[in-house]
Amino acid sequence: MTSTTRTETDSFGPVEVPADTYWGAQTQRSIDNFPFGLREAMPAEIVHALGLVKQAAARVNARIGILDAELAEAIQQAAGEVAAGALDDQFPLVIWQTGSGTQSNMNANEVIAGRANEMLTGQRGGKSPVHPNDHVNRSQSSNDSFPTAMHVAAARATHRRLLPALRRMHDRLAAQAKAWDALIKIGRTHLQDATPLTLGQEFSGYVAQLSDGIARVEAVLPRLHRLAQGGTAVGTGLNAPEGFAKEFAAEMAKLTQLPFETAPNKFEALASHDTLVELSGVLNVIAVSLTKIANDIRLMGSGPRCGLGELKLPENEPGSSIMPGKVNPTQAEMLTMVAAQVMGNHVAVTIGGLQGHLELNVFKPLIGANVLRSIELLSVGMESFTERCLDGIKPDERRISELVNRSLMLVTALTPEIGYDDAAKIAKYAHEHGLTLKEAGLELKLISEERFDAVVRPETMLGR
Amino acid sequence: MTSTTRTETDSFGPVEVPADTYWGAQTQRSIDNFPFGLREAMPAEIVHALGLVKQAAARVNARIGILDAELAEAIQQAAGEVAAGALDDQFPLVIWQTGSGTQSNMNANEVIAGRANEMLTGQRGGKSPVHPNDHVNRSQSSNDSFPTAMHVAAARATHRRLLPALRRMHDRLAAQAKAWDALIKIGRTHLQDATPLTLGQEFSGYVAQLSDGIARVEAVLPRLHRLAQGGTAVGTGLNAPEGFAKEFAAEMAKLTQLPFETAPNKFEALASHDTLVELSGVLNVIAVSLTKIANDIRLMGSGPRCGLGELKLPENEPGSSIMPGKVNPTQAEMLTMVAAQVMGNHVAVTIGGLQGHLELNVFKPLIGANVLRSIELLSVGMESFTERCLDGIKPDERRISELVNRSLMLVTALTPEIGYDDAAKIAKYAHEHGLTLKEAGLELKLISEERFDAVVRPETMLGR
Amino acid sequence: MTSTTRTETDSFGPVEVPADTYWGAQTQRSIDNFPFGLREAMPAEIVHALGLVKQAAARVNARIGILDAELAEAIQQAAGEVAAGALDDQFPLVIWQTGSGTQSNMNANEVIAGRANEMLTGQRGGKSPVHPNDHVNRSQSSNDSFPTAMHVAAARATHRRLLPALRRMHDRLAAQAKAWDALIKIGRTHLQDATPLTLGQEFSGYVAQLSDGIARVEAVLPRLHRLAQGGTAVGTGLNAPEGFAKEFAAEMAKLTQLPFETAPNKFEALASHDTLVELSGVLNVIAVSLTKIANDIRLMGSGPRCGLGELKLPENEPGSSIMPGKVNPTQAEMLTMVAAQVMGNHVAVTIGGLQGHLELNVFKPLIGANVLRSIELLSVGMESFTERCLDGIKPDERRISELVNRSLMLVTALTPEIGYDDAAKIAKYAHEHGLTLKEAGLELKLISEERFDAVVRPETMLGR
Amino acid sequence: MTSTTRTETDSFGPVEVPADTYWGAQTQRSIDNFPFGLREAMPAEIVHALGLVKQAAARVNARIGILDAELAEAIQQAAGEVAAGALDDQFPLVIWQTGSGTQSNMNANEVIAGRANEMLTGQRGGKSPVHPNDHVNRSQSSNDSFPTAMHVAAARATHRRLLPALRRMHDRLAAQAKAWDALIKIGRTHLQDATPLTLGQEFSGYVAQLSDGIARVEAVLPRLHRLAQGGTAVGTGLNAPEGFAKEFAAEMAKLTQLPFETAPNKFEALASHDTLVELSGVLNVIAVSLTKIANDIRLMGSGPRCGLGELKLPENEPGSSIMPGKVNPTQAEMLTMVAAQVMGNHVAVTIGGLQGHLELNVFKPLIGANVLRSIELLSVGMESFTERCLDGIKPDERRISELVNRSLMLVTALTPEIGYDDAAKIAKYAHEHGLTLKEAGLELKLISEERFDAVVRPETMLGR
Repeated sequence: MTSTTRTETDSFGPVEVPADTYWGAQTQRSIDNFPFGLREAMPAEIVHALGLVKQAAARVNARIGILDAELAEAIQQAAGEVAAGALDDQFPLVIWQTGSGTQSNMNANEVIAGRANEMLTGQRGGKSPVHPNDHVNRSQSSNDSFPTAMHVAAARATHRRLLPALRRMHDRLAAQAKAWDALIKIGRTHLQDATPLTLGQEFSGYVAQLSDGIARVEAVLPRLHRLAQGGTAVGTGLNAPEGFAKEFAAEMAKLTQLPFETAPNKFEALASHDTLVELSGVLNVIAVSLTKIANDIRLMGSGPRCGLGELKLPENEPGSSIMPGKVNPTQAEMLTMVAAQVMGNHVAVTIGGLQGHLELNVFKPLIGANVLRSIELLSVGMESFTERCLDGIKPDERRISELVNRSLMLVTALTPEIGYDDAAKIAKYAHEHGLTLKEAGLELKLISEERFDAVVRPETMLGR
Repeated sequence: MTSTTRTETDSFGPVEVPADTYWGAQTQRSIDNFPFGLREAMPAEIVHALGLVKQAAARVNARIGILDAELAEAIQQAAGEVAAGALDDQFPLVIWQTGSGTQSNMNANEVIAGRANEMLTGQRGGKSPVHPNDHVNRSQSSNDSFPTAMHVAAARATHRRLLPALRRMHDRLAAQAKAWDALIKIGRTHLQDATPLTLGQEFSGYVAQLSDGIARVEAVLPRLHRLAQGGTAVGTGLNAPEGFAKEFAAEMAKLTQLPFETAPNKFEALASHDTLVELSGVLNVIAVSLTKIANDIRLMGSGPRCGLGELKLPENEPGSSIMPGKVNPTQAEMLTMVAAQVMGNHVAVTIGGLQGHLELNVFKPLIGANVLRSIELLSVGMESFTERCLDGIKPDERRISELVNRSLMLVTALTPEIGYDDAAKIAKYAHEHGLTLKEAGLELKLISEERFDAVVRPETMLGR
Repeated sequence: MTSTTRTETDSFGPVEVPADTYWGAQTQRSIDNFPFGLREAMPAEIVHALGLVKQAAARVNARIGILDAELAEAIQQAAGEVAAGALDDQFPLVIWQTGSGTQSNMNANEVIAGRANEMLTGQRGGKSPVHPNDHVNRSQSSNDSFPTAMHVAAARATHRRLLPALRRMHDRLAAQAKAWDALIKIGRTHLQDATPLTLGQEFSGYVAQLSDGIARVEAVLPRLHRLAQGGTAVGTGLNAPEGFAKEFAAEMAKLTQLPFETAPNKFEALASHDTLVELSGVLNVIAVSLTKIANDIRLMGSGPRCGLGELKLPENEPGSSIMPGKVNPTQAEMLTMVAAQVMGNHVAVTIGGLQGHLELNVFKPLIGANVLRSIELLSVGMESFTERCLDGIKPDERRISELVNRSLMLVTALTPEIGYDDAAKIAKYAHEHGLTLKEAGLELKLISEERFDAVVRPETMLGR
Repeated sequence: MTSTTRTETDSFGPVEVPADTYWGAQTQRSIDNFPFGLREAMPAEIVHALGLVKQAAARVNARIGILDAELAEAIQQAAGEVAAGALDDQFPLVIWQTGSGTQSNMNANEVIAGRANEMLTGQRGGKSPVHPNDHVNRSQSSNDSFPTAMHVAAARATHRRLLPALRRMHDRLAAQAKAWDALIKIGRTHLQDATPLTLGQEFSGYVAQLSDGIARVEAVLPRLHRLAQGGTAVGTGLNAPEGFAKEFAAEMAKLTQLPFETAPNKFEALASHDTLVELSGVLNVIAVSLTKIANDIRLMGSGPRCGLGELKLPENEPGSSIMPGKVNPTQAEMLTMVAAQVMGNHVAVTIGGLQGHLELNVFKPLIGANVLRSIELLSVGMESFTERCLDGIKPDERRISELVNRSLMLVTALTPEIGYDDAAKIAKYAHEHGLTLKEAGLELKLISEERFDAVVRPETMLGR
């Protein structure tokens, strides 16, 4: 930034801002008042959503006739630039500001006014002809604009990032479940040998987790598509014209091609963020699912010589700075770390969600930033895991077959034949004496060879 | 219990059990191996659900023809007694046992066999003619029976306890929102004075939170109604006859009058408990909603002389052992404590949910016990809060009116008239000089008296 | 309880209480107002600590001369009975009551007065000659008595239960680390084969975790030994005589043989429970340590034929209701479930801790109950795990030796000899072609046989 | 970055890297394999600490004589540049990579080698004469270097950022506690009017919370100062020369002027991060303390005309985009949001901490990044809150005095005089009839005017 400045004002008085920026006095005050640095910047998704909010509001204000058409046009153009990410460097504020997000809303108002004024007058910044509050923020308050931006940003990220990543991972796992549907392996419960199943059956469980995950996300969408806009300061809609809320939601739906609608109760929409806590809870479930899946794959890929060794995972990079030739399940590690972060974020969102007071919850930026980060982490994590781990997995069929044939739990097939207690005797005897089940059964005279061979066959133990 | 014992056996050998109990060797081993005491008992809801599981299984086994009709009848009768709570004292095991709940499943198998044997032979306990594993547990494994019991217990608690409590509190709040729809009060955002709304509008936000809460619970039900039964040991259904899973679910639906169905994927149903993590996440949202509502009521009831004092809360008990005459918002305190516990339980459920390995999640009792405790705490908490706090709330209309008329934020109504900056000047001037808004506006010559009186009227600021 | 009642009164008026109880009007009101049932009873440890509080207070009040000696004697005797657990059935109140614990404090005041009156007059209950507030509660408020009881209960549980269990498990692990100090096994990082270490070295890591755990607990004790008593209603000590706080702490130290002292700042001691949040954080660390240890043992005990199989865990009970002969790591499962509960409880305590308002935190029973439950769960869990799992572990030396000799990561010993890149080539070549390291090294001509044999020896790779 | 590239290699083969960077093949692979973008960059504090690690290791290696002096000199110079932050743009890797941090360790090894080679040959990058593994990583593994960097980074942030911020806020509060020590105000418990105290007494509670916070942090330091370095791959120290661990810690202590020492057990130091979980738990306590303090100040600052209004908070920026003249407690909102994030981070750290397996915990970057972010958020948050909120607080003495004189709880002073029950009658009578306490007491004939005036005096109710 240059060292020359221009003077901007707000109701507190004049402030110097860098001459080449679009922002105004309130943005500058917030930079100075919350010195966390850009590492803690308000997520770009919220900035873009604020652009969409201002664009939709200008169009509706003009249509209703409470905003001059020329000003409205300039505002909606400038807002469109914000929405498209073209002015990201004009949004220097951080998450940790006022809990209503007022300063980021004013940042948007000021930048859009500053840019619209430049379009109209050639002069950057200022409050004339376009005023940040009276025109850009017309019919709005931070208290409805910011939660609207939170919902718009979260819904867009859900539709564009999360659901495609879930579907892609789901589809890949489904293809593997199908491909390995006949590959019989040992089952393990309590990490102890159990009765057999196929690798495809095992993977079908992961498929079910992800298809349920998709259903869980979709179940939240109707509530996520509800927008607070039109509630203004406390939910009553003071200073917003009649019909504004509905028309705004329709305009936003048009801009984003998503089925947004106006929140049926604006008091709730400002004072609580239960739906974002709910969405965070669904992200938490997905994180739980992904941890299970990645852990299983890490376990089955353990080895190569001293672990389970049932799956060969793709080798993406050298695994150790000291142990030559080592390869590690790094995508699984990335995914389980990402999942742990999402679970932590969920607690932050919960703690923010529970502390609303009367007409306003003032943990908005915390809630919005955590939900968006969780969505992004899960989305990139699933995409990367699918592409760089799942896609390259190869079952070690020899090892899988060796293990299943060794197991003592095939004895379970004998239970309907000789009862639980006698079957247990065979298994324990085999275990203690290092025998096969058949050897043990015959030695104990609890089963004949023919019946044993007829009954204890892994391929008949798959529930088909 | 008496000091005389009888000898029971399992595959590990003989064990002495108290002579007057129905349980057998495995129950007794678990009592000895996990000495946490009855303070940590497995929830009765799970015990009852295990009774239902055994009852339904016996009926289906008999119908399919793999269980002798007489034995089946005795089993289903004894299981019915367990389901009805008549044998609760025969379930001494604790939550902290094996992570599959095997020992509680065996406790049910043993008690039902012991009671059925008593019915059939006059002799309590034992394995003949009814055997705990071969007959009571027929076509089942702990690995499918216990998660089935978890879902049945959670679904029953949701239908019988949670949803009615949510609806009752919702209806009470809705009645209050209606009753106080015209009672104008000051709005507060950031805990600072803001523009007015009515007390009814404020309460309508709580109504919306609870009606969304009901919708959230209902969205989980389709997944909660899915039962693992039929998967047996690892999900393949080994040793369960064809058709068992579906018939079992139908029988359970009949027994409970709830729309249970068989889980579409049994591998998922044993190896993960994502749906209970999801349900716990919804309970977490409800806890967040209740904290907001109880906190608001506590705040508006603060005083009587040095707080906000807008609501008079019912006086249920003396509030202090040292300060005579003190009355406290104890129901709100109970409800917010309960909510904090539910949030903590949710983290425990999440941590249990993420640690499944391969074919089995072995945090089942932890997950089941926490979900059921959360449901019960929320249900009793909401019922008590509704009956003992909400029902007795009386607005202090004089105080409410005094405060709203004092507020500076009525100046917001002037913004469309004179612009944000000039309106801000009036508010600040009034604040600094201890004036009313009108006095300040006139002194600053920014508004005429007639326009002020026409515009700044709380009753026109309600968005109607 | 009998159906006959007697009439007790408080400042709200008369209440009927069961004739054979010691409690009075306020206890009865609380039973009726918070109908959670005894499953949610206030922990007995807090009840006993309240007994100690009343005992110490009566002695100090008498000594200072503000309580009649005869009354004081009766009070301190009755309080001693409460402290000893003899009157546990007189404490029917639940955790979920007023957030100050006032009703449990009054329960103690009433029962002690009721019992003291019985001693003095033969007549149970009432307020004369001993009055619950004016005499038993003399110089106290719930606001200082209840947090005092919380600290006393937590400190006693820490000294009597937690530290001994930690030390016992520590000592057992230390003995095993020593016993197995020369038993070479494969190391595993990322669950992948790595360079070797001894089983004793591996266990020494667990020993270090527990010895640090003990140090962590001890670091909190100085703050835990601080008592709020003497602060009365808001921390000023109004109505407590000069010197009461200090003398009380000394008396409590004498009664419990623990180094209690009066809190240096009583305002903090009533309004926040940071020290219990801190203690809960230490319990959370211990839960993390225990999860790691139990998980490792579960992993090394996996098998018997299709897992790592390095450790043979004791067989405590049949493991499956359907798979005969199956044995599971049930103590490890219990311990990891307990740990997950402690982590959840920690979040509940944190959420309760953060919501104090002005002169009082009103999440006291929640915080106290969770800290005490966590201590008890960890203590019983560690004791049981030590006795029923650790004590019976046997290394499978044949399997351990077989695995270490198979590993490719012994190649690391070649790095200082031939460099990382060439060593990596050998490991990869052996892996791809199913060779031993030596075979691969010779085939690739990257090392001579003598140098290989001289350098790649597990027993020289242990850092001794 | 330019479009020209150079070829770098690792044990997987050649990779193109941008020509003007210092990094090598493994860094480039990680960029490609974990596409999260720089928003998720590994914290600079860890990068700098890795620089210190490499610097100290090179010095010790040279001193021991296992690293050529010239190479060592170049390495330690280049590493010094990394430590000083001069090469931050050469560290493009993200948190979400392998769970051992191997790739960030290799990033440091490669950049330092690349820069050292440039110093020695004029040519950037490559492996000669300085090799990333054989020279820069000499005597080290990622498995000990990365956790060493985590401890070094966390300890430096604690000493440089957290403790100074805690002390500054503590000192400011202590000055206010002193300044307002005689300013009598109403106490509030349960948010209800209680007995009086002084504003200074109230603030003294906050001072105690912070001084305990400092003690809590200091109690962790001895464990935080322990370094894993010297354990190499699995804790045995394979390939590190004798004495390396101790000399390294001494060198690090010298470089940083902090009392680092070598970890007494290296197996624990690689396989678990209990001490960082512990530190995170202490940050969680501080977050709890700060929430309480900020909430109190927000409550006491509520108004200006419809709240408690006891404190005037500094006005830092316009508070509303729609309500002119509104000012909000934005610093309190920032601080409570920051605190909520720290509590969420703590859960993420806990979940990462509990999932270590055998010789390695592979949630290292997650744990390190969250602990460092929590420290930074708390530090900036406390500094900003102190400077921009605490420093400007002014008590509204008129309002404070008006409230205290209105309160009914002054009746508590009458308890020792007339007993609890009669005092309660006075308070209730006054409340119901809108009287002062004196009026009520006289009307009920429960106290004489002289006694009332003698006893009920706020200034004598402060426990002095």
